[in-house]
Amino acid sequence: MNRNDQSTNIVSKLRDLLGDGGVLTSPEDIAPYERDNALKSSGQAICVVRPSDTAGVSDVLRACTEAEVNVIPRGGGTGLSGGAVPRPDDRAVILSLDRMRKVRMIDVVGDVLVVDAGITLFEAREAALKAGRTIGLDHGGSGSSQVGGNLGTNAGGNNVLRYGMARDQVLGLEWVLPSGEIIGPPSELRKSNAGYDLRHLLVGSEGTLAVITGVALKLRPAPLTTATALMSVDTPAKALELLGLAREIFGETVSAFELMSEGALAFHSAHVLRKPIVPLGSPWTALVECDSSSRFFDLDGAFASFLERALESGIVSDGALASSTAQRAAFWSLREGIPQAMHAAKIPIVRTDVAVPIRAIPEFAERIKTLSIQRIPGGHPVFFGHVGDGNIHFNFLPPDDMNSDDFRARMPEIYRIVEDAALLFGGTISAEHGIGQTKCDALTRMKSAKEIELMGAIKSVFDPLRILNPNKVILQ
Amino acid sequence: MNRNDQSTNIVSKLRDLLGDGGVLTSPEDIAPYERDNALKSSGQAICVVRPSDTAGVSDVLRACTEAEVNVIPRGGGTGLSGGAVPRPDDRAVILSLDRMRKVRMIDVVGDVLVVDAGITLFEAREAALKAGRTIGLDHGGSGSSQVGGNLGTNAGGNNVLRYGMARDQVLGLEWVLPSGEIIGPPSELRKSNAGYDLRHLLVGSEGTLAVITGVALKLRPAPLTTATALMSVDTPAKALELLGLAREIFGETVSAFELMSEGALAFHSAHVLRKPIVPLGSPWTALVECDSSSRFFDLDGAFASFLERALESGIVSDGALASSTAQRAAFWSLREGIPQAMHAAKIPIVRTDVAVPIRAIPEFAERIKTLSIQRIPGGHPVFFGHVGDGNIHFNFLPPDDMNSDDFRARMPEIYRIVEDAALLFGGTISAEHGIGQTKCDALTRMKSAKEIELMGAIKSVFDPLRILNPNKVILQ
Repeated sequence: MNRNDQSTNIVSKLRDLLGDGGVLTSPEDIAPYERDNALKSSGQAICVVRPSDTAGVSDVLRACTEAEVNVIPRGGGTGLSGGAVPRPDDRAVILSLDRMRKVRMIDVVGDVLVVDAGITLFEAREAALKAGRTIGLDHGGSGSSQVGGNLGTNAGGNNVLRYGMARDQVLGLEWVLPSGEIIGPPSELRKSNAGYDLRHLLVGSEGTLAVITGVALKLRPAPLTTATALMSVDTPAKALELLGLAREIFGETVSAFELMSEGALAFHSAHVLRKPIVPLGSPWTALVECDSSSRFFDLDGAFASFLERALESGIVSDGALASSTAQRAAFWSLREGIPQAMHAAKIPIVRTDVAVPIRAIPEFAERIKTLSIQRIPGGHPVFFGHVGDGNIHFNFLPPDDMNSDDFRARMPEIYRIVEDAALLFGGTISAEHGIGQTKCDALTRMKSAKEIELMGAIKSVFDPLRILNPNKVILQ
Repeated sequence: MNRNDQSTNIVSKLRDLLGDGGVLTSPEDIAPYERDNALKSSGQAICVVRPSDTAGVSDVLRACTEAEVNVIPRGGGTGLSGGAVPRPDDRAVILSLDRMRKVRMIDVVGDVLVVDAGITLFEAREAALKAGRTIGLDHGGSGSSQVGGNLGTNAGGNNVLRYGMARDQVLGLEWVLPSGEIIGPPSELRKSNAGYDLRHLLVGSEGTLAVITGVALKLRPAPLTTATALMSVDTPAKALELLGLAREIFGETVSAFELMSEGALAFHSAHVLRKPIVPLGSPWTALVECDSSSRFFDLDGAFASFLERALESGIVSDGALASSTAQRAAFWSLREGIPQAMHAAKIPIVRTDVAVPIRAIPEFAERIKTLSIQRIPGGHPVFFGHVGDGNIHFNFLPPDDMNSDDFRARMPEIYRIVEDAALLFGGTISAEHGIGQTKCDALTRMKSAKEIELMGAIKSVFDPLRILNPNKVILQ
């Protein structure tokens, strides 16, 4: 049987299982499912399947296993490593969970939210908020990214220094093996030591081991008070001093600590805002946020003390506290607008996702900045990111007078500089975006051959035919 | 070669590797290593090896792999499921890390503590405290239990509702495979998505996959203020109302919420204190603690409001706030003394480690109490534990007029009642003590056959010869 016959067969089988509405085949219907925020596929989607429940996911996987057809599970498509995008040589069924978006249960006694994996993070957060609760995960893509995808990639975002990564929000999972077997429902327990923790193995496995269909998430009390400040600092070292001061004064309530270089804000200003940004004039700007869910936390007093001490001690040269919700949103849009500007600008850009131990940030930042400019003089290094958890995104823009093709050809040199420096400081070049298909080679530099061998063997345990998101994370 | 020759050979080989001081062989030297807090081994330890560094652990494991001799890794021996104790039919080398207890590094900028796995939890906490930091893990056995053992068993304890389990304190691990290969050093990163999370697979695997030798732990700011109260409640349902009120008032700063039944305190009083306990007279006593590392948290105001509202609304009938550090310690010793009393009393006791979704606690507690007394009239049900995370320890003491042998023979009936009820409510009978050797059968009721099959296959990936802590967690 040739490939086209096989495709026709599996499509017809999937239609039988899911009905016409559950299977998309026309190129225009499929196109939105063939890309993420980093890559457009040059591979081929046989079709897109959209089951409406876990049993449907099971049916799809069983049928694809029987036909030995590859399956790529997919969330909201906001990934940044091509993890949900067919590889150039791949032909696969794309499994979208975008019809599985129910809130299954919310329990404010035990603070548990159980959802279908296809719900967007924004919708899940809204459901929690209605009950006076929040989820300890938030990031720029929350409007379209799905909870299942957030877990598949172990998303990070803006509150990691307080609440941890996506994995740290999970009580239990419901999941489906490539064979179609369903493991579930999601455990709602906060304590359960019953054998190996398969949950944490699935989280961050980027859809290569099983398909997550249901999730029990921890809820936390929603903040009653929030304070957000922009503060000007001269160097990353000063930013770390400021972080220390914030911890000393706010204690457990520090919820975000972001840092932006002047170049990052200038780029944002030029490409998106098209107007000057007020804090410009300082080489670095920190965004500090703290919030509390107790009305007995004196946020005003704490912030006044914070600003006073930061100014007095010379850690910061200037600082502004958001005086309204609108101003708070404006502060955050400065930060969130930077990656949007990178996206909007029609130029090639070196975009990285590095993390190093927090104490190493100043030396690391100086090193990659210096080496990058030495390598491509006139290029523009920009920094922005989550300094509070060591994850400083470094981007490098072409010199004003270099054409795009020339720069594109030289981008790997800069990637290598950043990679080498990150590894030198005990860091990673995949802090929160995952490996997907773009960083499989990099993985071999971050992990030992033995670790990768173990990962490959684990892949075989879950997916012996290797039909699930093949050649992602680990090359086969 | 017969068994004794084999033993002589491996002992001699291990002596060559570690020197005389690193290998214990006399029965009196070995005896302390053949038991934990639940079991005394009737199996046989060939010898106890005590390497002084990671290379030594690697040497031991390589030698044992070559000789195909079983190895049981061991922490402080405070386990409660026989996980570190040779099975009746086992002959094994016991690998103790009690000579590996260095603090390798402390970083207060990034809030990271890197230690040898053999350090006790108490010593690690002291090192953190000296730097103004704390570790989000504490439990009754901290004085002798080791950090490596805490991670091997994913220990729980008193602060889970705030900080999570032992696994949630870990940034990275250094570990040694049965083949002797070393994976390390421990990552200090707060964000790193680089392939499958082998760290979380090792945590909670009870030494069956690899030996943890080094750990990078998250540090948190040490509390500046702590408030601890004992409060009398009539029912577990009222206790949950009190938990809700505590969350409403204290927000993120609630750090412990323990509940003790009158019977538990009476037993403690009779067997350890040998004097009456003050809060007696109420059917249930809650221990509520909250702390903050910010001086801008108005703890006194919050606690006054908490007591007032709890009394006004009739949730509690009485309450006392600890007025000194000594009184705080006294409150905690009421709670911690209960399991100590169980240990001290020379009678057979049904001791369980169940967790259910928090909202189910009242119904669950009522059910197991009623069914147990129906089954063995005159028996004494007692409850104590971490209600804030759903983990209520239920123990059942023999009727006053029943002899020990008769009761011992009937204990499995009570265990079964508790197990059935826990599973009925979506709970677990291994909340924080692990599976070890005593709960392997129970595991098969808590997890599906497919999950156990996957765990078995993962075991084979890490330990193909199955020499590492054999027949623990999963029977081979």
